[in-house]
Amino acid sequence: MTKRVYNFYAGPATLPLSALEKARDEFLDFAGTGMSVLEISHRTKPWQKVMDDADALIREVMGIPNDYKVLWLSGGASSQFYMVPANLQVPGKPMEYVNTGGWASKAIKEVNRYGEAKVVASSEEENFSYIPADVEFTEGSAYAHITSNNTLYGTEWNYDPKVPSDVPLVCDMSSDINAREIKVKDYGVIYAGAQKNLGPAGVTLVIVREDLVERVPDTVPTMQKWSTHVGKGSMFNTPPVFPIYMCKLALDNIKETGGVKAKEAVNREKAKLLYDVIDASDGFYKGHARADSRSLMNVTFTMATPELEDKCVAGALPLDLVGLKGHRSVGGMRASIYNAMPIEGVKKLAEYLTEFKEKNQ
Amino acid sequence: MTKRVYNFYAGPATLPLSALEKARDEFLDFAGTGMSVLEISHRTKPWQKVMDDADALIREVMGIPNDYKVLWLSGGASSQFYMVPANLQVPGKPMEYVNTGGWASKAIKEVNRYGEAKVVASSEEENFSYIPADVEFTEGSAYAHITSNNTLYGTEWNYDPKVPSDVPLVCDMSSDINAREIKVKDYGVIYAGAQKNLGPAGVTLVIVREDLVERVPDTVPTMQKWSTHVGKGSMFNTPPVFPIYMCKLALDNIKETGGVKAKEAVNREKAKLLYDVIDASDGFYKGHARADSRSLMNVTFTMATPELEDKCVAGALPLDLVGLKGHRSVGGMRASIYNAMPIEGVKKLAEYLTEFKEKNQ
Repeated sequence: MTKRVYNFYAGPATLPLSALEKARDEFLDFAGTGMSVLEISHRTKPWQKVMDDADALIREVMGIPNDYKVLWLSGGASSQFYMVPANLQVPGKPMEYVNTGGWASKAIKEVNRYGEAKVVASSEEENFSYIPADVEFTEGSAYAHITSNNTLYGTEWNYDPKVPSDVPLVCDMSSDINAREIKVKDYGVIYAGAQKNLGPAGVTLVIVREDLVERVPDTVPTMQKWSTHVGKGSMFNTPPVFPIYMCKLALDNIKETGGVKAKEAVNREKAKLLYDVIDASDGFYKGHARADSRSLMNVTFTMATPELEDKCVAGALPLDLVGLKGHRSVGGMRASIYNAMPIEGVKKLAEYLTEFKEKNQ
Repeated sequence: MTKRVYNFYAGPATLPLSALEKARDEFLDFAGTGMSVLEISHRTKPWQKVMDDADALIREVMGIPNDYKVLWLSGGASSQFYMVPANLQVPGKPMEYVNTGGWASKAIKEVNRYGEAKVVASSEEENFSYIPADVEFTEGSAYAHITSNNTLYGTEWNYDPKVPSDVPLVCDMSSDINAREIKVKDYGVIYAGAQKNLGPAGVTLVIVREDLVERVPDTVPTMQKWSTHVGKGSMFNTPPVFPIYMCKLALDNIKETGGVKAKEAVNREKAKLLYDVIDASDGFYKGHARADSRSLMNVTFTMATPELEDKCVAGALPLDLVGLKGHRSVGGMRASIYNAMPIEGVKKLAEYLTEFKEKNQ
């Protein structure tokens, strides 16, 4: 019997067991080809079927309209930080951002190679513990950029910012894609590194409204243009085959378990279990995120001393609850409870935290 | 019993069976962690050990000197086509290339965003069937670029071009890295997409002499600078974990089977088996590459008619010899016989080709 723990790491993160088992079972002989999926040419029918299935599944589970293109790219969401301004720059028009934490800050930093970055709101002065309220973007901007969920700080947008109709909204959804239902048509571009809520590391999903694909100037290198990859079905060069294949298997799991709507219901239940423990702890656990900005995906909290936090993290290990140490930006603890985390794992963690408090307060 | 075929695809390509079996066996529980290697945080000790082992192995099998940095990046060799000029540009200095085929042409095309590309030699006029002789690069160039093996055409450099001592030689080694012994110190930069001779798709090895790491201008985006990744041990952002892990396992296989020296001996034997069949066929099989430019890795040949070629490719399938159709650049047939192709597979193919000729000439 294979040992399996409850994995609360922020990413790379836990994957659906069904996807892992399927991949293992056909690891040496994919679809009867006598080759591993790692070995098969990307110019073959069995591989094309994986790409087509992955496309169809992501379109189905997210409800992506036909006038949007779907790309599976390498380079991580960090490469989209420069590809967004490279592809969407318009001379003289500012590129607007909301700074809600580490990843948003990194995205903003890349803009100055292409034009003017304008930060319209930020929560930096309170260590990114909230999503700024009443955010409005400016008419005539090249685009408006937000980070829907902030992995490091455990905050998530819980309202729609005001975006003028001529300005495309660009969203880094790396850590909450498919965690809850969204309307793709509200966005111009959505991108997401796979390794949190979509699949393993090594591939980035990019969803682009088709009128935005051709905006890119000719001077941008071929590989950095979304249009290059749109024209070749994400296979201008050899795609990261295994990460895409694993995303396909993880999407199968979403579809088979009731889609994003069902995942959202469970995610709300999972998050509530942990926030309830924090709220009932009389300050023993201090949530980092302000209540109105709490993330469904990353629950961040601190305790009175680093020693107590270390004790809490260490005490969870014998119970097979791993990956609970917080990021250095916040300290304390962080439980990442993405789609693939079973509710049983969260219940076990909630019980442990309740007991730990009783023993140590 | 798992079915396994002999896979002659040009890439993604066959991998060592030992590497595949090891990966499968620990797919759900990596190194006793209770997590898949796909799920484990890249900030953990078990993952750091994979990175450290991969670095140590590539340094050992290639004999990489200490003043070279090793990077495992995403984006494919195609991303290095722009990263090479982005990182090595010097205002006013030309960037020199030899055009030996499709991939070299694509690399040359990306240079004009950064400065002047100068093609010092080309074999385009004879459909890239040879490596130009007596190539010399020019003193004062920013760098000199070659493609050591040309997958599409089946040609490979079999001599060292003349490179002035102040000019770093940059080599795209995607399709023959570790196929034969080389002296890393002869190069300034070596890069290789993994999916031919190193591992699976999704990661690119970059080896850079340390004095070249800092040449990059500040205006280059963060993710495109080699210096960014050198400073963070290839983990500035989440690395493509599974492809790197598979490269590590494939490198274990090289080390355990006698290193690159032993691979080279077998590769020469494998290539000779096929070129001997071509040479003894009285023109039934026409080798595309000129004899002095023949590749150890990709054996390309045509026959009298496309119908005969199709018949030959189809007739190989029942013998479990797959992936033999040539690239459209050359047509005909191509047998890619990378390090992981067992000599038994090549013998079986040589026998089949001999018999096919006897029956169809």
